[in-house]
Amino acid sequence: MLPGILEQARMFLKEVIPEGGTAVDATAGNGHDTLFLTGCTGPEGKVYSFDIQQQAADNTASRLKNAGAEAEIIVSGHQHALRYIQEEVIDAAVFNLGYLPGSDKTVTTTPETTIAGLEGFLNRLKKGGRVVIVVYHGHSEGKVEKDRLLTFSEALPQKEFQVLQYQFINQKNSPPFLLIIEKK
Amino acid sequence: MLPGILEQARMFLKEVIPEGGTAVDATAGNGHDTLFLTGCTGPEGKVYSFDIQQQAADNTASRLKNAGAEAEIIVSGHQHALRYIQEEVIDAAVFNLGYLPGSDKTVTTTPETTIAGLEGFLNRLKKGGRVVIVVYHGHSEGKVEKDRLLTFSEALPQKEFQVLQYQFINQKNSPPFLLIIEKK
Repeated sequence: MLPGILEQARMFLKEVIPEGGTAVDATAGNGHDTLFLTGCTGPEGKVYSFDIQQQAADNTASRLKNAGAEAEIIVSGHQHALRYIQEEVIDAAVFNLGYLPGSDKTVTTTPETTIAGLEGFLNRLKKGGRVVIVVYHGHSEGKVEKDRLLTFSEALPQKEFQVLQYQFINQKNSPPFLLIIEKK
Repeated sequence: MLPGILEQARMFLKEVIPEGGTAVDATAGNGHDTLFLTGCTGPEGKVYSFDIQQQAADNTASRLKNAGAEAEIIVSGHQHALRYIQEEVIDAAVFNLGYLPGSDKTVTTTPETTIAGLEGFLNRLKKGGRVVIVVYHGHSEGKVEKDRLLTFSEALPQKEFQVLQYQFINQKNSPPFLLIIEKK
């Protein structure tokens, strides 16, 4: 069976993150992806995890502690991520757009900050590295963000990046799709 | 590196075709996919290969002979395929839309026959089987065919089929993309 969007997102990430590597969760949320990334990099690697909401940072810290894993959790927007990332190159980054699951849904990612963060990560990606974006676009702001992101991604120079859209197209209720941007 | 469209198409096919299985090349063309499918099914399996052009059938027969492989090559449109296919279920089918590479480009697949053929294969697919369509849409008829096919695919019932669109979106010159339809 074709893997679902979230499973496939992790496959795209895992393929390019070596043990000892550096990975970024641009939207910590409840910490699921942060924990997954620590499994990819292993204890010798480094994972940064960003979120503007303290609740998300706390949830992520708790999830990591329960699993005996470590990451650097930073309560800040991903548009400021490069201030915090020491490594000159990163292997991968992941975004889950939209709102924090389980929260009041009023705080969402926004097109400007998402694209600013994305640009930063693209500048630091290793050759062959990937940014994977899970595009939730069912909420009111989501359609605008999706369109802006597609416009931005379609314009990325073909010589420097591959941009893959991976989307199930016969599902109701605006299910999320994936954008995978790989540095050539 | 992310696999290209044609390589990825074959990966989607190979995953669901067992040794001894039944597969269909709906557009024999120069026989590349027919030969690939015979490698998936092995000598105990069965591959049907359709094309409306005698030149395509000859090219395919020649390619198979050189490789020591066998398939049933039928000079007929894929919309008539079920007349020829003995097996009650098939594991996979592949379409390469557009014109025969190396020919005069005046003979192309058409929306009506493509969708008629596709419907036939979907009715015969095993559970977990797939139809993979390489959608070339750079030629004048191609855009119409692409739009018709997307409309058809988006309307396939979610309970019965998964429909995945797999597309590089930052490339010039209308590169082909994939539609993968999997029976649930």
